[in-house]
Amino acid sequence: MRVLILGGDGYLGWPTAMAFASRGHDVTVIDNYLRRKIAVETGSEALLPNPELFKRADIFHSISGHRIRVEIGDCTDYGMLSAIFKDLRPEAVVHYAEQPSAPYSMINYDCARKTLNNNINTTFNLIWAVMEHAPECHIIKLGTMGEYGTPNIDIEEGWIEIERNGRKETFLYPRQAGSLYHTTKVLDTDLLWFYVRTYGIRVTDLMQGPVYGVSTEEAELDERLFPNFHYDDIFGTVVNRFLVQAVAGVPLTVYGKGEQIRGYININDTIQCVELVMKNPPKKGELRIFNQFTEKFSVNEIAEKISRVGNQMKLNVKIMSIENPRKEKEEHYYNVRHDGLLKLSLKPAYMTDEVLRGMMSKVIKYKNRIDIGKIMPRVSWRAA
Amino acid sequence: MRVLILGGDGYLGWPTAMAFASRGHDVTVIDNYLRRKIAVETGSEALLPNPELFKRADIFHSISGHRIRVEIGDCTDYGMLSAIFKDLRPEAVVHYAEQPSAPYSMINYDCARKTLNNNINTTFNLIWAVMEHAPECHIIKLGTMGEYGTPNIDIEEGWIEIERNGRKETFLYPRQAGSLYHTTKVLDTDLLWFYVRTYGIRVTDLMQGPVYGVSTEEAELDERLFPNFHYDDIFGTVVNRFLVQAVAGVPLTVYGKGEQIRGYININDTIQCVELVMKNPPKKGELRIFNQFTEKFSVNEIAEKISRVGNQMKLNVKIMSIENPRKEKEEHYYNVRHDGLLKLSLKPAYMTDEVLRGMMSKVIKYKNRIDIGKIMPRVSWRAA
Repeated sequence: MRVLILGGDGYLGWPTAMAFASRGHDVTVIDNYLRRKIAVETGSEALLPNPELFKRADIFHSISGHRIRVEIGDCTDYGMLSAIFKDLRPEAVVHYAEQPSAPYSMINYDCARKTLNNNINTTFNLIWAVMEHAPECHIIKLGTMGEYGTPNIDIEEGWIEIERNGRKETFLYPRQAGSLYHTTKVLDTDLLWFYVRTYGIRVTDLMQGPVYGVSTEEAELDERLFPNFHYDDIFGTVVNRFLVQAVAGVPLTVYGKGEQIRGYININDTIQCVELVMKNPPKKGELRIFNQFTEKFSVNEIAEKISRVGNQMKLNVKIMSIENPRKEKEEHYYNVRHDGLLKLSLKPAYMTDEVLRGMMSKVIKYKNRIDIGKIMPRVSWRAA
Repeated sequence: MRVLILGGDGYLGWPTAMAFASRGHDVTVIDNYLRRKIAVETGSEALLPNPELFKRADIFHSISGHRIRVEIGDCTDYGMLSAIFKDLRPEAVVHYAEQPSAPYSMINYDCARKTLNNNINTTFNLIWAVMEHAPECHIIKLGTMGEYGTPNIDIEEGWIEIERNGRKETFLYPRQAGSLYHTTKVLDTDLLWFYVRTYGIRVTDLMQGPVYGVSTEEAELDERLFPNFHYDDIFGTVVNRFLVQAVAGVPLTVYGKGEQIRGYININDTIQCVELVMKNPPKKGELRIFNQFTEKFSVNEIAEKISRVGNQMKLNVKIMSIENPRKEKEEHYYNVRHDGLLKLSLKPAYMTDEVLRGMMSKVIKYKNRIDIGKIMPRVSWRAA
C-alpha cells in the first residue's frame, strides 16, 4: 500500500515507517524537525542522539534492504503538502505531525500559538490535500485520550447517544482537555468531523493513551534506528521518565496524589493498532474513532511497578510525591470503553514485569547519557 | 465603562460602538477591514457605501458629540492587540472580529484557511491579551446558534447534563456546525472553555441566531452611519436578502424545501443583549453561555411574512424554491432553550408586520442601488 507518514521523525512516526516498510508497504515520511528544534530550545534532547531522517533511512536500507522515501518539509505549507499528495496519491496517510508536548504548549504565548497553528493547520492541510488529490485516501489521525479529560461518567468510544424526552441523537462524545496541546487535538477532531460529514472523506481518529517503550523489532537492528526516547519534563511520558529515574537513582516523581488514572499502550501496540486500522479502512464519509490503549493504571500503580521491578534489579528505587505542576483532578472516576481495536483483533502486549525489566535493561546501557537536570517539571499550569 | 470592540467596522460592531458611546461608555473599536476586502473580492458590496471608520467616527462625533476611538489593525497580530490592551486596560471587550460568511468559508482552500486562521487566532490573541494585561476584563464573544446544528433532541443553553448508570456530568452541549465558518466558532468555544477553566478568565459566549435590520437609533442620525447592509449571497442573511428581493421585484429564493428553522434576532436586540450582558458580568472562571435570539421561524414562514407585507405595499412579491446550495437538513426538529437573556430582562423587538414594513420602506429608498446580480447563490457546499 502507498502510505504517507506525517511526522516521520517522531517517537512513533519513525518506528511506524520502518515497520510498514518491512511489511512491504511503499512508505514516504515527511517531517519539519519541529520536535528536534523544540528539544534543543528547551534543553530536552532524547536519551540517544537520532540521526536525521535521510541518514536513518540509509542505515535502515543498508541493513534491511527496505527503502523509506524522505521529504523534509512543513505540513502547514500547503504548496509542499499538496505537491507530495499530487505526486504520490497515497492510499493511506498516518498523521503524527503535531507538536506533542502538553508542558511546551503551556509555557507562554509563543509556545501556545506555535502549538495551535502547527497542529490545526497541519490537520487542515491534510484534509484539503486528500480532498483535492486523493479523495479515496484513508486518513489515520493520532488523537489522544486526553481529549476526553476525566469526566464523572463512563467514557464511550468516540461517540455518545443522548436520549431526552423520548428523542435520541448521537454526538461526538463531549471533550474537555487538560492542556492547550490536548485542546488542539479536540479542535482537530471537530475539523475532521466537519469535513467528513460534508465531503465524505474517510477518517480514523485514534484516541491514544500515553505510550511507553524503548525499542521496536526493526529498531533492534541498529541502535541508531531507535525511536527518539525522551525522559525529560517536556517530551517524556510518565512511564519512560520513571524508567530513567529508576536507572539514574533519582526518586520517581509522582505529581500530586498520584491517583490520576490513564490508559497506557506499548509502542509496539501503537504500530500494531495503526496497521490493523490501515488494513480495515472505514467507509467513505465515516469518522471512525477508537480509544487506543490496552490497560489503565494510576500514576501510583506505575511508580510501584517500576519501583518493584527496579528493586529486583538492585536499583534501589524510591518514590517521591511532588507538587503537581498541572491542573488536573488527582482523584477521579475513570471507566473507558476500548473494545474497538480488540474487535479488529489487536493482541496487546501488557506492561508485565518482564516487559519493564526489558526496557530497564536497555536504559541501563545508556545510563551514562542520562542528564538528571532534565527530569523535574519546569512548566507550571498556574504560571502563565 | 472602558469597552473595546473588535470588528468595529462590521454590521454589528459599528452600531454597538455608537450605542455604547451614546450611553456614556468609553469606546474603542479595532478593525482590519477584512470584510470590506472580501466584499470587493467577491463582488458583494453593501447596499449603501459605508465611510471608513475614522470618517464615520468623525461624522458621529460631529452630530452626537460622542467620541469613538478608532484603531485599524489585525487582531491576529498579537503585538498590536496586546499594546492596545496594555494601554487601554478595557473592562469589557466585545469580540465581533471574525470572518462571518459561511458561503465564503466554503469557496475553496484559500478562503477556508483564511477564515480558520483569522477566527481562531483572533480569539486566541484576545484570550492572551486579557490574561496578560487585563485579567479582570469580561470577554463578550459572539458565537452562533449554528454551532449546535440541528440535532434531534432539545438544544439547551450552552451546557448539557448527562446521566449514565447513576453518575452525572455537565458538558458543553455537543456542537456540530453546518459550514467551516460555523465550525471555527465551535473551535473558539473549545478554546475559551479551556482557558476559562485553566486560568479563571471571565467569558460570555453568545450563541446568536441570524440577525436582521436596516438601521438603529444612532444610525438614524445620518445615513452614512447605517450598519453595512448586505443582501448578497456571501454576507446577506436571509431576512435582509428577502427584503431586498421583495423591493427589487426578484422572487424570494427559498433554498430547498424551506423548512429549515432558525432563531432570529433584530439588530437592535443584539445591541440590547450585549449591553445587558456587559452590565451583568459572569464571575471569574465562568464561561456563561446564552442562546441569543428572540423567536424562531422556518425560511418558508419568513418568505410568507415578507411576501404578505410586501404585497400590502404593492410590491408584487413572488416566492421561488431553488436548489439548496448548502448541505443541511431541510426538515428537522428544533426546540431550543433561550431564557437566559430574558431573565436578564431583555425586551425583545419581534418581527412584526410593522417592523417588516419599516425595514422595507428604508430599502425602497435605495432601490436604485440594488444589484440583482448579487443575490443568487454562487457557492455550493458540494463543489469544493
